[in-house]
Amino acid sequence: MSVLVVGTTALDSIKTPKSENPRLLGGSASHAAVAASFFAPTKLLGVVGGDFPKPYLRLYERHGICTRGLERVKGGQTFHWHGEYEVNMNNRRTLNTVLGVIENWSPKLPGDYETTPFVLLANISPQIQNSVLDQLSKPKFVIADTMDLWMNIALPELLRLLPRIDCLVLNDSEARQLVEDDNSVTALAKIHKLGPRYVIIKKGEHGSILSGPKGLFVAPAFPLGKVVDPTGAGDSFVGGLLGFLAAQKTGSIETNLRRAIVHGSVVASFCCEGFGLNRTTKTTKAEIRFRVRELEKAARF
Amino acid sequence: MSVLVVGTTALDSIKTPKSENPRLLGGSASHAAVAASFFAPTKLLGVVGGDFPKPYLRLYERHGICTRGLERVKGGQTFHWHGEYEVNMNNRRTLNTVLGVIENWSPKLPGDYETTPFVLLANISPQIQNSVLDQLSKPKFVIADTMDLWMNIALPELLRLLPRIDCLVLNDSEARQLVEDDNSVTALAKIHKLGPRYVIIKKGEHGSILSGPKGLFVAPAFPLGKVVDPTGAGDSFVGGLLGFLAAQKTGSIETNLRRAIVHGSVVASFCCEGFGLNRTTKTTKAEIRFRVRELEKAARF
Repeated sequence: MSVLVVGTTALDSIKTPKSENPRLLGGSASHAAVAASFFAPTKLLGVVGGDFPKPYLRLYERHGICTRGLERVKGGQTFHWHGEYEVNMNNRRTLNTVLGVIENWSPKLPGDYETTPFVLLANISPQIQNSVLDQLSKPKFVIADTMDLWMNIALPELLRLLPRIDCLVLNDSEARQLVEDDNSVTALAKIHKLGPRYVIIKKGEHGSILSGPKGLFVAPAFPLGKVVDPTGAGDSFVGGLLGFLAAQKTGSIETNLRRAIVHGSVVASFCCEGFGLNRTTKTTKAEIRFRVRELEKAARF
Repeated sequence: MSVLVVGTTALDSIKTPKSENPRLLGGSASHAAVAASFFAPTKLLGVVGGDFPKPYLRLYERHGICTRGLERVKGGQTFHWHGEYEVNMNNRRTLNTVLGVIENWSPKLPGDYETTPFVLLANISPQIQNSVLDQLSKPKFVIADTMDLWMNIALPELLRLLPRIDCLVLNDSEARQLVEDDNSVTALAKIHKLGPRYVIIKKGEHGSILSGPKGLFVAPAFPLGKVVDPTGAGDSFVGGLLGFLAAQKTGSIETNLRRAIVHGSVVASFCCEGFGLNRTTKTTKAEIRFRVRELEKAARF
């Protein structure tokens, strides 16, 4: 079944101690859609300005991603994030952000998007996430990703979103912030009370934790000896996860979610090995299958 | 088969935002020996002063731990650590340390200790760890735990130890410090070159990573909703691990090590639920088996 991904479609300029990488293709929806496209037909919903490079459009298309929902605003500027990583690649700081066309964007779904069964509300404002949900016709499974920014500036809108989705994805510190709890495990229980039946806490190199009706899944991350640029890894994780889930022909969501998380984690590992989408877009399905098997072996006891 | 544990036998005074807990039984060898004793006959090698409370001796004995190697220095002071935890229990700082009798301790093994097959050199100076190894007769498997302090003040002695042991255990930041590498996965490969065939990186609530001849094992931690006092969790982990390993009648070290790590991790989870050894000493084998099964279910995919 197919996947709809809404989120930011951006240009990322990424500085590290070793290099400058201006105007890479980035944004939560770009990373998530490419990741999902390894497993399932994927539709993109986003907005870019007239400055959005044509080769980036062709990149989506090469991955079979439907761009009918990618609005182009002539004369407008594409959302641009400029950030810098420290030596160990763990800490990053934002040097500059230009919202551009995303600032006043009000998403409108093309007709054939409305019935997409698997929906990823990738990281973007909860207003936009809610507005996309308003236009959907009975999706089978909806995942939303979020971040601390929205808890700080749009909490009521985020709280309105949570009962409307099936699964919330957020990182460790964000989970604790959302429910003001120092312990991730007890934080999970409190987040369920806000609405979502499934909650996934992302812990980067330490893996992730899924909480659902049948208890916890402590998921490993693929052990990576080389991290070039972790930008987009979280988006690749959730995109790969939902793409895999949408592609399963048998088994319940609950049953398939664990293996979906492992596949998302593997796609995220490739994302970290290059700047922007450079490594992800060179990844083959055979490479993904190989790393999943490696991770299975490494996690077995 | 039996286990020998050498390390510190201490009094810990632990302050948290909520309580003061003076003169608890602590030290790396105390935690590790109690943890090992759940699985295998355990011998303790350590030193205490005349101030060491008799009930603590009886506590070792209640766990069937042989204390013939626990030297008592009349008039001497027991090693005493005084520390404080912050609200989230992740950061701790040392308020005061009294080395006492441990400062000039030169361990002497009772005759029947020399042939113990499984040996844990729990966290203590590498001088003492080397001196214990000098007195052992062909142990089957030797694990050493260490910490950043010894890398800072006794690196040559630590480097002399590493080719003499089978397995080194240390935490994430210490592994990176030891071989000056920002990535834990590549750090593991470099640590093998310093001697040990097996290396285990402890990551607290994020689990651990074992590296050995057959590759990596990415091990989960038991997800814990309540952390009262993490002091000694790392010692409990490695003690439980070695105790379990010593108790296996079939299978190679390589095969048994993964399940040993899971059992160590579960014993450590109990340690975190009370001050000092309060919760660990109340733990039953049935509780350990139950949590191991829970962790198996939570990690399966």
